Amino acid sequence: MNEITGEHGDNEAAGRSTGIPKDHPRYHSLVVRERLAHLAREGIVSLEGLTAHGRGEAFDYLIGERTTASAMLAEKTAAALLLTASHPVISVNGNTAALAPGEIASLQHASHAIVEINLFHRTEERVLKIRRYLESAGVDVLDGTPEHIVPLSHDRGLSYREGTGIADLVLVPLEDGDRCEALVAMGKKVIAVDLNPLSRTSRMATLTVVDELTRALPNIASFCRTLRVEEAREIVRSIDNSYFVRDAMLEINRRLSACSG
Amino acid sequence: MNEITGEHGDNEAAGRSTGIPKDHPRYHSLVVRERLAHLAREGIVSLEGLTAHGRGEAFDYLIGERTTASAMLAEKTAAALLLTASHPVISVNGNTAALAPGEIASLQHASHAIVEINLFHRTEERVLKIRRYLESAGVDVLDGTPEHIVPLSHDRGLSYREGTGIADLVLVPLEDGDRCEALVAMGKKVIAVDLNPLSRTSRMATLTVVDELTRALPNIASFCRTLRVEEAREIVRSIDNSYFVRDAMLEINRRLSACSG
Repeated sequence: MNEITGEHGDNEAAGRSTGIPKDHPRYHSLVVRERLAHLAREGIVSLEGLTAHGRGEAFDYLIGERTTASAMLAEKTAAALLLTASHPVISVNGNTAALAPGEIASLQHASHAIVEINLFHRTEERVLKIRRYLESAGVDVLDGTPEHIVPLSHDRGLSYREGTGIADLVLVPLEDGDRCEALVAMGKKVIAVDLNPLSRTSRMATLTVVDELTRALPNIASFCRTLRVEEAREIVRSIDNSYFVRDAMLEINRRLSACSG
Repeated sequence: MNEITGEHGDNEAAGRSTGIPKDHPRYHSLVVRERLAHLAREGIVSLEGLTAHGRGEAFDYLIGERTTASAMLAEKTAAALLLTASHPVISVNGNTAALAPGEIASLQHASHAIVEINLFHRTEERVLKIRRYLESAGVDVLDGTPEHIVPLSHDRGLSYREGTGIADLVLVPLEDGDRCEALVAMGKKVIAVDLNPLSRTSRMATLTVVDELTRALPNIASFCRTLRVEEAREIVRSIDNSYFVRDAMLEINRRLSACSG
């Protein structure tokens, strides 16, 4: 068995094998952490990516670790954008690949989007490892020679002509804000999956899904399978991203008020 | 120069040497991440600790990356507790050691507390590395044979008879909730430094300082130097921890309301 691919979805087993006390109240969260730590040792996840995951964990905790009603609506809207795009691209970084390889495969299947690897901490070796990891989960990863397509300093601008280059819509889960901003400035529509409603990504994106990745992607895929094209076109005509972002902030506020009251 | 100790406080240099774009809006935060990643490679910080740091980052972001007025009052109260304790102990884990070695040394000097190493992901090799890292920053680290003093599963219960064993007050920065709960159940007073006001640690502790570690510890040390014993005794008589926790939640609420308004 491939040591890396053997980890797919096997969080519980990973937890038991490495000694997280089953009675710990944050057991599930610690098991995911441990799985990411394993994939960091394998070179899939960057060490900085582990910290970025922790940021997401905190915001997920604040929205109650569930898909809110407004997030579900955002996920339906994301499906509508994917279905009506000419060249939809899913941009995958290390954390996205590590957390949701099977979910990316399903969404690709449902949306016919191109999947492209874009890394902040990029080496060709790491790109290859992530490619293999995704492929073993059934993802069809775009091949080619990376070029400086997105105007960003350093290797973060590296992208593919046949991917982001020709895309009219890019789904960027767990990305950083200035990449999102640069894509929007290039005239592309951007769907962000970002648990932080205050982030620049959330505010800059065409559509922001404030939900945890492994909950969000299957919901988007499911809507891709059931939405009719006419309905999708109608949804796309009236996107108000500020509503989704604001409602996520209000959800956090409601939760904090309930705790502090 | 010692490769590990050469990193103390040298965040900017670490950032420049490893390619974080200076124009990135989260530059400082990324530089700290990179420093922790370096210390993870050195075996000081656990990979799971990197994720835990990210959680803290998110909450710090939400309270505005500054010491709030109520946090400052909590820091004064922490100093009062330290000054009036018979056997104060500062319990240090990997992240605390990595983020604030010099600050721990200063606080130890100002408070005359014993410094003890307690790790979630414990190996004797890691304990030794952290000891050396702390000692090189001027911390006097308690030596001895660890025993199962705190009733927790696994190695997290390992502590020292001359430290936590006899302590009437334990300062636990960046700790997990059930450790805090177990210490309180043992009849000890606990000061937590925790950026998450919703956490079990925050709610269980005798006193919760909702502030970032490298801001909190110097403030506590400063109050240790200036507080008179009589005033300290008075402060300790009227601690209302629910006020500190609730005010931190309200701070986040205010910030989110300002953004979503």
